[in-house]
Amino acid sequence: MISMEKQIEQIVESILDDYGNGRDIDRLEQMRCPDRDAVIDIVKKLRKIIYPGYFPDKNYKFYNRKPNISALIEDVMFRLTGQIKLVLQGQGQEEGEAANKAQEICLAFFARIPQIRAMVQTDLQAAYDGDPAATGMAEIIFSYPGMFAITVFRLAHELYLLGVPMLPRIMTEYAHNLTGIDIHPGATIDEYFFIDHGTGIVIGETTVIGKNVKIYQGVTLGALSTRGGQSLRGKRRHPTIEDDVTIYAGASILGGDTVIGKGSVIGSNVFITQSVEPGTSVINKKQELQYKQRKV
Amino acid sequence: MISMEKQIEQIVESILDDYGNGRDIDRLEQMRCPDRDAVIDIVKKLRKIIYPGYFPDKNYKFYNRKPNISALIEDVMFRLTGQIKLVLQGQGQEEGEAANKAQEICLAFFARIPQIRAMVQTDLQAAYDGDPAATGMAEIIFSYPGMFAITVFRLAHELYLLGVPMLPRIMTEYAHNLTGIDIHPGATIDEYFFIDHGTGIVIGETTVIGKNVKIYQGVTLGALSTRGGQSLRGKRRHPTIEDDVTIYAGASILGGDTVIGKGSVIGSNVFITQSVEPGTSVINKKQELQYKQRKV
Amino acid sequence: MISMEKQIEQIVESILDDYGNGRDIDRLEQMRCPDRDAVIDIVKKLRKIIYPGYFPDKNYKFYNRKPNISALIEDVMFRLTGQIKLVLQGQGQEEGEAANKAQEICLAFFARIPQIRAMVQTDLQAAYDGDPAATGMAEIIFSYPGMFAITVFRLAHELYLLGVPMLPRIMTEYAHNLTGIDIHPGATIDEYFFIDHGTGIVIGETTVIGKNVKIYQGVTLGALSTRGGQSLRGKRRHPTIEDDVTIYAGASILGGDTVIGKGSVIGSNVFITQSVEPGTSVINKKQELQYKQRKV
Repeated sequence: MISMEKQIEQIVESILDDYGNGRDIDRLEQMRCPDRDAVIDIVKKLRKIIYPGYFPDKNYKFYNRKPNISALIEDVMFRLTGQIKLVLQGQGQEEGEAANKAQEICLAFFARIPQIRAMVQTDLQAAYDGDPAATGMAEIIFSYPGMFAITVFRLAHELYLLGVPMLPRIMTEYAHNLTGIDIHPGATIDEYFFIDHGTGIVIGETTVIGKNVKIYQGVTLGALSTRGGQSLRGKRRHPTIEDDVTIYAGASILGGDTVIGKGSVIGSNVFITQSVEPGTSVINKKQELQYKQRKV
Repeated sequence: MISMEKQIEQIVESILDDYGNGRDIDRLEQMRCPDRDAVIDIVKKLRKIIYPGYFPDKNYKFYNRKPNISALIEDVMFRLTGQIKLVLQGQGQEEGEAANKAQEICLAFFARIPQIRAMVQTDLQAAYDGDPAATGMAEIIFSYPGMFAITVFRLAHELYLLGVPMLPRIMTEYAHNLTGIDIHPGATIDEYFFIDHGTGIVIGETTVIGKNVKIYQGVTLGALSTRGGQSLRGKRRHPTIEDDVTIYAGASILGGDTVIGKGSVIGSNVFITQSVEPGTSVINKKQELQYKQRKV
Repeated sequence: MISMEKQIEQIVESILDDYGNGRDIDRLEQMRCPDRDAVIDIVKKLRKIIYPGYFPDKNYKFYNRKPNISALIEDVMFRLTGQIKLVLQGQGQEEGEAANKAQEICLAFFARIPQIRAMVQTDLQAAYDGDPAATGMAEIIFSYPGMFAITVFRLAHELYLLGVPMLPRIMTEYAHNLTGIDIHPGATIDEYFFIDHGTGIVIGETTVIGKNVKIYQGVTLGALSTRGGQSLRGKRRHPTIEDDVTIYAGASILGGDTVIGKGSVIGSNVFITQSVEPGTSVINKKQELQYKQRKV
């Protein structure tokens, strides 16, 4: 009989051999890849920068906030630059070039923070105005998953616009993990955006959303067909939602040519693949339900 | 050309300036706010108190459990009192008053633990009885997301009843994060409640659920319209589900006047905004499907 | 008036007394139970073994990878054996017997790692081919929730086949927590499996899925009725999906006798409880929608 040590050794050998098959998953050499945990840490710190008084840093609570916020900003700039450099190198850029480009992108990103904060404030206001269960702004910031997902999206979207590979999607998928709300960082979303409950929402890469739009759990803003696979990359595949539209739970709006006109209301579970004029209310004709009675 | 240091300094300055705009998100001074991480830690420890032998504390495993559980309870009481005090101060209560009130609430909450445990035991039994895939009670406690969401809800609901602001919602949104099950802490839910799979479930603030109710993934117990926003605060907006009702996946039941009578069965994807008599089975009339054949 | 200390003491006593009720949730003695955190740690390390260059271990980054991967594999074998031993003891096996059986299972599991990796590579290829938004393999590995859920499922399924209680479900429910994708470890899923977006997907215990199948968010592959509860344990309750089938968002396919024939396409929100011939495209007849116009 083969000894346990020998058996373990053989198994380890067979796994190491298996790494030599040259497939995408086969690499023993560490790739130049972003560190997901580091990216998540950056997201958490960026949230502190967006909402400075709400997520206090335990280490600094007895001191003056201003120098600490400055230190926090510089810390995040340093870390984010490092991750951007890694993904640019992963794309084949030479180290020095990647370092310069990363620093440039990071500065441009941080210069946009006040604009991002201005957008986030409108989203917060929209959440408060739209939800009778909301008891105050702080409750929304601390506990509403929609607020979290939108905040992370607004940050990731700026990095997406600056051409950063991979990091924006890692950021929005982190929010997707926590909230069940899947917003691709490429989507274009204007101010006063409100997501209620949110689980199951999908907003595709080429979606365009206007001002003051409300969407509920389970809404898909998706592609009509993705059977073209990679041949569709870069093409407009997702709908346009104009200003002041409300989309109730479970509705699906699909297709790159589909435009939901200003002020429209799309009812629960409606499935739409064609454009809708401004000011239209669309609901399902009353479901035909069957009722059967039993003794209780 | 401006030096890197100078550029960073300018960006930091512009962000710090932006904090001076007086909006909800603008505060340099730390607000008296609950610490979300501390609240989550309290939830985890409360779960150990609810299921004492199931989530062993690594530090104490070689000792007698009884003194350790006592120490755990006192520890959680101390921490919870601290968080309650913070949210009461956030509401404007003076420090001493908030401290006294927090201690009183915390004692009342812990006095309810045996009643909460009695309810949780009925929920556990309902999960076992209702799911053919369940191999035992421990599997349900360790891995069923519905069991976790209900346990956290039952704890948060008691704090909600005791008038604690913000903390109950942070607790249920933590469970929502992990499970995709969104139960507002204000909902009223009787014993033997079973949630299967659960992702996408929404149970609104003023919902009332009777004994021995089963609901599946994607079910919404929601408001008929929330366009009234903050003007609807405190009004009954969500349905009543009587005893022994089963609600299958994806069904939506909306409105504060909607009552689903005792023993009714609501089929998958049914959309209901009106009351249903006791003992009724409601299903969609057979969907009209179009079939097209292709060569394979 | 009773002193605070006395009140706390009374509450602690009443909770400890409550543990003596003999219900499932009542145990002061620690049960022989798996440690959920340890299982999650094992899943994270197994992922490093599946994708060796993608999730670098910070401690080892300056050294040669090969000895470190070997050390990682041996570490996971040791930890997994420990957890398996615990769950076997929880089933009533005597310590020595459980230890031997656990080691045997663990060796058999690790001997399957190359086959698991071969399957995962096909899933990765399917994700890349199927999604126009995918910019590369690394992005999929780092950020696609479907890829994560399938990887964890493939690992858990092998342990399920080896008769390990409880751990497989803890593993897939961990993935369910993070992704909203609920795949029971008992399901049988062939190669090139692609899940897009994924939130709200449910795949039941006795489901059988062929090669090259694509499913989207909100799809249920479920049981027709679970009202039989525990009496249905072990029976075939979930559908068969043959090769090359695509199932769009929100569709439900239910029942153990339901077979979706090779190459079929099931449209969004279709609800199916009967078999479908190979090569069939099934869509909902156009929803009857009501449009109302308002001035904007």
